[in-house]
Amino acid sequence: MACPLITLTTDFGLRDPYVAEMKAVILGISPEVKIVDISHQVDKFNVRMGAYVLASASPYFAKGTIHVAVVDPAVGTKRRPLCIQTRHGYFIGPDNGVLVLAAKALEIEHVYELTNSTFMMPNVSNTFHGRDIFSPAAAHLANGKLPSDLGRETRKITTPEFAKVVRRKAGLVGEVIHVDDFGNIITNIGEKELAPMRTIKAVKVKVKNTWFTMRFCRAYGEVEAQEPLALIGSHNFLELSINQGNASRVFKVKNGDKVVLHRS
Amino acid sequence: MACPLITLTTDFGLRDPYVAEMKAVILGISPEVKIVDISHQVDKFNVRMGAYVLASASPYFAKGTIHVAVVDPAVGTKRRPLCIQTRHGYFIGPDNGVLVLAAKALEIEHVYELTNSTFMMPNVSNTFHGRDIFSPAAAHLANGKLPSDLGRETRKITTPEFAKVVRRKAGLVGEVIHVDDFGNIITNIGEKELAPMRTIKAVKVKVKNTWFTMRFCRAYGEVEAQEPLALIGSHNFLELSINQGNASRVFKVKNGDKVVLHRS
Amino acid sequence: MACPLITLTTDFGLRDPYVAEMKAVILGISPEVKIVDISHQVDKFNVRMGAYVLASASPYFAKGTIHVAVVDPAVGTKRRPLCIQTRHGYFIGPDNGVLVLAAKALEIEHVYELTNSTFMMPNVSNTFHGRDIFSPAAAHLANGKLPSDLGRETRKITTPEFAKVVRRKAGLVGEVIHVDDFGNIITNIGEKELAPMRTIKAVKVKVKNTWFTMRFCRAYGEVEAQEPLALIGSHNFLELSINQGNASRVFKVKNGDKVVLHRS
Repeated sequence: MACPLITLTTDFGLRDPYVAEMKAVILGISPEVKIVDISHQVDKFNVRMGAYVLASASPYFAKGTIHVAVVDPAVGTKRRPLCIQTRHGYFIGPDNGVLVLAAKALEIEHVYELTNSTFMMPNVSNTFHGRDIFSPAAAHLANGKLPSDLGRETRKITTPEFAKVVRRKAGLVGEVIHVDDFGNIITNIGEKELAPMRTIKAVKVKVKNTWFTMRFCRAYGEVEAQEPLALIGSHNFLELSINQGNASRVFKVKNGDKVVLHRS
Repeated sequence: MACPLITLTTDFGLRDPYVAEMKAVILGISPEVKIVDISHQVDKFNVRMGAYVLASASPYFAKGTIHVAVVDPAVGTKRRPLCIQTRHGYFIGPDNGVLVLAAKALEIEHVYELTNSTFMMPNVSNTFHGRDIFSPAAAHLANGKLPSDLGRETRKITTPEFAKVVRRKAGLVGEVIHVDDFGNIITNIGEKELAPMRTIKAVKVKVKNTWFTMRFCRAYGEVEAQEPLALIGSHNFLELSINQGNASRVFKVKNGDKVVLHRS
Repeated sequence: MACPLITLTTDFGLRDPYVAEMKAVILGISPEVKIVDISHQVDKFNVRMGAYVLASASPYFAKGTIHVAVVDPAVGTKRRPLCIQTRHGYFIGPDNGVLVLAAKALEIEHVYELTNSTFMMPNVSNTFHGRDIFSPAAAHLANGKLPSDLGRETRKITTPEFAKVVRRKAGLVGEVIHVDDFGNIITNIGEKELAPMRTIKAVKVKVKNTWFTMRFCRAYGEVEAQEPLALIGSHNFLELSINQGNASRVFKVKNGDKVVLHRS
């Protein structure tokens, strides 16, 4: 069997040596493993964005992939380090919600707390568990260790608070869960919730107390350049966009903002 | 034979999960392939910059390398997905000009339109052909499929409009094709066109209606720090630079600006 | 034996094709080698930052790793290209100080000047030795060539000027050697110099002529969010930080600033 992949998702950025230190530790333990960066530019300490990015990318990776995610404002305090085993792969990181969105989507089977210091760096720092606890755990797992070798099983797991989508007579109320690098506004309103509205051709969307009318499209290019549109993005959520433009700048929208959706 | 390399050039940035999703799809189909990022920070929708970056880097890769480039403002509309076979390697991406500069330099042999859905993701989204069409095509090619397996041969191919270099009595007229991260101004005036001027020691350059006199150098360090210079860059084009400074900021120049070059 | 790793540290950024050209050259010569990016976002021409980033990450890599670092404002002039052999690995780059901090920490054994053109690109440009001299040298070393094959042994080596830590009656005087992406302020005051002060619970720190009192902590989370603290970072230097905030912005501190440390 091929050596499994390890993916990395962090808010460490790419200027500093931190990501390379994690890779050095991983490759020191498991020299043949392949490492794929999901993102190191999660907004600093933004657990929700980390959770979204990880949940978007992880389903595309092969079975058995080991995902390490470190957006960890409470590093060195009592929040627990976890390894979550799912039907599809493993998720390693702090118990602060960053792993859960992704892990739930891939069906959680067991959760372990990383308590076995045999599989940590000899001197665990209080500021960089990404390098000293999570990276070695991932590398030992890649080498064939069992998740149960890494620590004791647990049932507790912290779930991040994302707003639920609310169904009202006139439409739906949700929130912005991510603004991507193109300025596309990704909401937490999924394909299923939208289904009853998909026969209509346009929607009215309220963001920041202003109503906008947008055509429901299948591709950005169905409207003229700089025109707004609504579509189901490649992530299967409702996305508000401007063809070849930056919707978040035009609509002045940011992560966490409320979105109200009415039939046009 | 070693597994071929796949390179990626996109305007997706590194914050979002999009690049990782492409890599996940590629490695799911061709687990042993090596992936090298050329750039994911092409300016959004800037096909010309994507074409320049790809054309600069691709000649340095080994024969048989598969280059995927996705700067694709018209994704999901009728622009065709292509695989261009050259003497030196393969180029996969949309038919909007992003591939052509690089492919022509490496001698185009055949062009195929990606029409065979066997080698696409099962559900092709309308917004992310990079993941759903181009990545699987590249991975299947890396696994030994023939380019002719991916779709039907075609002769049509869209060529990007870059200004031609014009030779006048007093000198040359070209344009800025890239401003690099150091602020170096790279023009479309190549080594050949410059040959008749290379015996002279300095040139007058007009950018934005202002004339500057610059020494013709072989290395940045031949002038004092913060002094301007002209040289043939590592890409074999005329480059206007400031030693240890940022020429594009000082000369207020951006991609697409006209450049007039006279003997000093 | 597994093929050694090659790491890259540059100020090239990630927009341009330069890093990919280095990787293409390396993989053309040594197709099985694994390449790990340490950072390509060293501040332009900032040899000190490059030296710090390389010295932080390199100790975590396995024995025999080959580190290439290119922050090279004097490329193409007379500064010499070097390969430094240490007990732990190899360092390849310009003789301007970028390699020395890291190499000294891993115990320098021999220094070679890269003079053998057999192991360079056929046409060495005057502006891009990273691609034309340093990358091929690293790849040939990875293939089993000896460092003495790359050029003649030398004893001269340029050492970067970092301020020495000064011990005074009241405390210590050092300087800021790096501001990381979180805004954490990393000083050149090491664990050893701090040892006599570690029994105290708080320090007064003078930056930019203002005194701040900070608790000495083991982890960021020991103070409330947005509160300042001092700690020994994962790099084993004194770090001034704000829990979940940006210390460099709040204290208006930048690389090179003086730091005075007193018992509180």
